[in-house]
Amino acid sequence: MRAECVIARCREIAQCTEVPGETTRPFLAPSMHRVHELLRGWMKAAGMSVRVDAAGNLRGVLEGAEANAPRLLIGSHLDTVANAGAFDGILGVVMGVALVEALAVQNAVAGKAMPYAIEVVGFSEEEGVRFAKPFLGSLALIGELNAEVLARRDANGISVAQAVRDFGLDPGELSDAVLETGIFAYIELHIEQGPVLESEGAALAVVDAIAGQTRATLTFAGHANHAGTTPMGPLRRDALAAAVAWIAEVERYASAAAGLVATVGKIEVPSGAGNVVPGLCVATLDVRHAQDEARRAAVDHLLRFAAEAASARGVRLTHEISLDQAAVWMNAAVASLVAESVLQATGRPARILTSGAGHDAMVLARRVPSAMLFLRTPGGVSHHPDEAVLAEDVEAALAAGLEFLTRLRDDRAMLDQLVLNARAYAEAANA
Amino acid sequence: MRAECVIARCREIAQCTEVPGETTRPFLAPSMHRVHELLRGWMKAAGMSVRVDAAGNLRGVLEGAEANAPRLLIGSHLDTVANAGAFDGILGVVMGVALVEALAVQNAVAGKAMPYAIEVVGFSEEEGVRFAKPFLGSLALIGELNAEVLARRDANGISVAQAVRDFGLDPGELSDAVLETGIFAYIELHIEQGPVLESEGAALAVVDAIAGQTRATLTFAGHANHAGTTPMGPLRRDALAAAVAWIAEVERYASAAAGLVATVGKIEVPSGAGNVVPGLCVATLDVRHAQDEARRAAVDHLLRFAAEAASARGVRLTHEISLDQAAVWMNAAVASLVAESVLQATGRPARILTSGAGHDAMVLARRVPSAMLFLRTPGGVSHHPDEAVLAEDVEAALAAGLEFLTRLRDDRAMLDQLVLNARAYAEAANA
Repeated sequence: MRAECVIARCREIAQCTEVPGETTRPFLAPSMHRVHELLRGWMKAAGMSVRVDAAGNLRGVLEGAEANAPRLLIGSHLDTVANAGAFDGILGVVMGVALVEALAVQNAVAGKAMPYAIEVVGFSEEEGVRFAKPFLGSLALIGELNAEVLARRDANGISVAQAVRDFGLDPGELSDAVLETGIFAYIELHIEQGPVLESEGAALAVVDAIAGQTRATLTFAGHANHAGTTPMGPLRRDALAAAVAWIAEVERYASAAAGLVATVGKIEVPSGAGNVVPGLCVATLDVRHAQDEARRAAVDHLLRFAAEAASARGVRLTHEISLDQAAVWMNAAVASLVAESVLQATGRPARILTSGAGHDAMVLARRVPSAMLFLRTPGGVSHHPDEAVLAEDVEAALAAGLEFLTRLRDDRAMLDQLVLNARAYAEAANA
Repeated sequence: MRAECVIARCREIAQCTEVPGETTRPFLAPSMHRVHELLRGWMKAAGMSVRVDAAGNLRGVLEGAEANAPRLLIGSHLDTVANAGAFDGILGVVMGVALVEALAVQNAVAGKAMPYAIEVVGFSEEEGVRFAKPFLGSLALIGELNAEVLARRDANGISVAQAVRDFGLDPGELSDAVLETGIFAYIELHIEQGPVLESEGAALAVVDAIAGQTRATLTFAGHANHAGTTPMGPLRRDALAAAVAWIAEVERYASAAAGLVATVGKIEVPSGAGNVVPGLCVATLDVRHAQDEARRAAVDHLLRFAAEAASARGVRLTHEISLDQAAVWMNAAVASLVAESVLQATGRPARILTSGAGHDAMVLARRVPSAMLFLRTPGGVSHHPDEAVLAEDVEAALAAGLEFLTRLRDDRAMLDQLVLNARAYAEAANA
């Protein structure tokens, strides 16, 4: 189909940057104007009407045949981390536009009327780089870009509200950014940002859930002593040895528990020296699982184990939980239709993956039945200039996406069912 | 006896410092003049002749009854680490003087002639602080304060030779610092600087050996990855997990091997973050044992284990050995006499300890049969202003030391045997 065009567009957008020679584009940075300009052009050429809402989200709409037709959202984010790749986020927006283009052509050729509208959203912020708070764009759509968030300041003391004004927008109009009723699904195409699909030789995965996360910092306080004169055993209160016994268990436990990932990413022995028994050791813990119960059981076990490993060595353990975020499940009805579309379009069943990273779909799923389609990430490399996608995978994702859109267009009963599904979903979310 | 006086003298010397409010006295710092002045006064009052050799060592001699009498050395060092305690090193010198005082009084009262001379040495340098090279003082006595060492420069660009001149000494006269023949033993009284004696409720220990040391740095190179999207297992190349498996083995192996201490004192995950699988981990290893074979076997095992722990996780291991220093054994004849003197004077057998830290006795032992007597260190605290000794332990050590000196005075056969022992020792050392 148009994989090469999609990749070329992503690479063109990657040229819009605050730092020449790399791709660095935080929330509503000046270079975001050019991103909007490029996408606006492509969206209009595909027959969409385009606006930028007060949160800086770019929103292109392909209207349905009838007024008040139910609406499908397709989206991802336009911002990047520092020195980013060309595909994280932006690929999902560019593919949304490409899908609308392809569908519009097919509609015209086959003389089909659209029983639903499609809105492609390029979220202004997802990475959390500028304000140390992620999802600013999608939060606006669910009405949670509130006064507290608007007051946050970046490293230069500029508030979110001021950043919105500096970009030429009016934070007083944020209510216009909130989702209308009648949205029956949100789908997001995104690179996997991990090695699983590549290791299995698979192109695409349907996401079942975005894993819940616990992050904690553990502090082991022992007693610094001379490494030569302090014998092994009870006279030695080695904070690192206690931490190490625990970290070994983090690896062992997570490796034995299906679907669990647990990582100690940072460790420090403050003022440590080669010939001094470590008196203090501080280490982080990051635990993720699609099932909150499995995650909490893991955290409980690991904290208990840490306390025992510490106490066995005369070391005192304290810990602080900095994040305890529940898993977000994708909607089974929408995800199933995505999975069927993958099978239909590619002849291969989609792999089912849990996303270990956060995505805009986490936020949208609070109001709208949501699903995600992952594309294989060569080398698992992301948040890095070497980030890439394979043209064949983009091709497969476009084929699957078009299958999804045409089935919804051509199977009225299925569309109606999704609309009912979404209504029930919204009611449950409001309850 | 005179424990309180010994402690008071140590505390008086601790007032001689380059940094007001703490005790910081590196090699031949101006404050060392006052240390010499105090000790010179006490030595002269005990009937000793005193000189400062060209390496800045203070040397007081109580002559024997006859010219060319065999000579016993008693000593330790006068310099300190930064913000030190009052007893590391200096205690051994002050006790040497106190022992000569006590012996001289006893000789006078009992009308005893001394069949041997005693030289009390206050070494100018042991800690290695100023020139990043320890044992400058004792190296001069064995003739190894050579041109290479004299050319070393401190942080201000001043050479060892210049520091000697600045103190008013002449590095051209270093040959006069070298030990004469006829020295039959060196003994050093020193605080343990560790927790073992205290934990066993014992006052004194005779040192069997100064442990050999291996120091190394291990670098584990894996692959940094997203902590959420990289599953456990072969797709994860966690450098810290590999290091941790190894550090756990360091603790396990050392705890199971008698007399071995092994410590990982420093660990770093450069640019680590809580949500990133560690791509790199650097850790130190410090291994000590009185038996060089046991130490080398431990190092071999631990490096092999590290390589396996790394390779099991797709991590590459490299290592660098920065120190491989053989153990130094104290002389059995001298150490036995010290041990017998402890039993005789205190009614309790001395604990036998391996010193995990280096001491001047390591250097002297290259030429002279040497022994060390350790005093209990409250809390194992050393190199810290809280460093202390118990008056009862100083009392016990003085009693043991006096027993040692009087036995040598009164048992001519034993003295002759030690002189022969020393001659054979020196020949073996020169061979």
